[in-house]
Amino acid sequence: MDARQVLTEFFAGGDRAFIPNLSVDCSILGFHDGELKVLLLRWRGTDRWSLPGGFVRQDEPLDRAAARVLSERTGLERIYLQQFHAFGGVDRREDALAPVFESLGIHVPADHWMVRRVVSVGYLALVDFAQATPTPDVFSEECRWWDLHDHPPLLFDHDDIVTRAFDTVRHELQSAPVAASLLPERFTMPELHRLYETVLGRTLDRRNFQKWIRERGFVERLDERKTGRSHRAPYLYRFAEAQ
Amino acid sequence: MDARQVLTEFFAGGDRAFIPNLSVDCSILGFHDGELKVLLLRWRGTDRWSLPGGFVRQDEPLDRAAARVLSERTGLERIYLQQFHAFGGVDRREDALAPVFESLGIHVPADHWMVRRVVSVGYLALVDFAQATPTPDVFSEECRWWDLHDHPPLLFDHDDIVTRAFDTVRHELQSAPVAASLLPERFTMPELHRLYETVLGRTLDRRNFQKWIRERGFVERLDERKTGRSHRAPYLYRFAEAQ
Repeated sequence: MDARQVLTEFFAGGDRAFIPNLSVDCSILGFHDGELKVLLLRWRGTDRWSLPGGFVRQDEPLDRAAARVLSERTGLERIYLQQFHAFGGVDRREDALAPVFESLGIHVPADHWMVRRVVSVGYLALVDFAQATPTPDVFSEECRWWDLHDHPPLLFDHDDIVTRAFDTVRHELQSAPVAASLLPERFTMPELHRLYETVLGRTLDRRNFQKWIRERGFVERLDERKTGRSHRAPYLYRFAEAQ
Repeated sequence: MDARQVLTEFFAGGDRAFIPNLSVDCSILGFHDGELKVLLLRWRGTDRWSLPGGFVRQDEPLDRAAARVLSERTGLERIYLQQFHAFGGVDRREDALAPVFESLGIHVPADHWMVRRVVSVGYLALVDFAQATPTPDVFSEECRWWDLHDHPPLLFDHDDIVTRAFDTVRHELQSAPVAASLLPERFTMPELHRLYETVLGRTLDRRNFQKWIRERGFVERLDERKTGRSHRAPYLYRFAEAQ
């Protein structure tokens, strides 16, 4: 069955399988080697981009819908996903949707369930982008990482969603080990330092950073260094159990 | 038109005016004179209690629906309401709803829009309960404040919603002036101290608390004391502008 058939069936009967007025959108932020990216989809037949997302199945918990989107678009499983905000503006979708469907060659009547108002619950995930396999969904023909600070304008209110996701991450770095999913289980202080510099987008004094991190108490130093080869090898750390 | 008529019409055609699968629930926490309370509704003809909440109108932004519930149930306007989490479990409502409707004398068929799955977006507000006028909605016959730590078990997943709202408040007290809505514009350090003790549910050493608050930088001391009568009158403070 080709994509057009899949979509035609989805448009015809999807409101039995899915909750019509509710979606999830995932801000999947990728970090690797000092770069910070966001995963975006290009919609079929257009040059317009959006976040990965989707409707919620009638029998599917909200969190599981978000986990399904994350895993289908990246191939990654058991990644920490955080719900951060529900986007409930009245006009958040309608202007953008009709031309996208037209470009897919599918006529969607004005009162169709697909073009009614949808409230979307935003989730965010932090992943190592080198380990993900970007995969388009049936609405899109390209799925790729973009620089978080240099990507095309997004469909719908997705620019707002990304901005708010990133604000949430930066805020949580102050108080919680949100970074845990971006580092191996055991890591060095220079690795953690680089992660914070990349996400916060600024240089952080090494000594002050180490002092600040130690005071927060969410990492603990192990009695072990990165390699056994040298006394100068950096100590390994791990995130402390949740307090 | 009596309540039964209103409800009968709502059940018959409410899914044209409201989004069927989406609601808001408001954890309205009330503080006054060292007491911390939560506003609850007793459903008609039952001894079962829930949070105030409601469906979202088709033409109403999500935040405005929550503000409408807050204002209709308390008479308070322009209160800071914070969205904190969307509750999207599959079975969060269905067990509890049928007996409530039966007790209202209204037959609701099993596939009726009112008893389908609803995802609810939780909002929280902190108010001075001495200034609110609790008012039941059409589903309920009593609306009153209960001690936050001593209230009846709640309908649906509302115990979870209250717990999470309170966790959010306690967490935010560590980093943000979420307490601003509970104090007059200018307040004394003893007033702020008492608020924190009440919300956190424990005694806080006066000196340590003052030091901690000053370090956080979200209040500023004014060049003014509470009364002009004595040099011992406490200084007045106000919350600093958002940083």
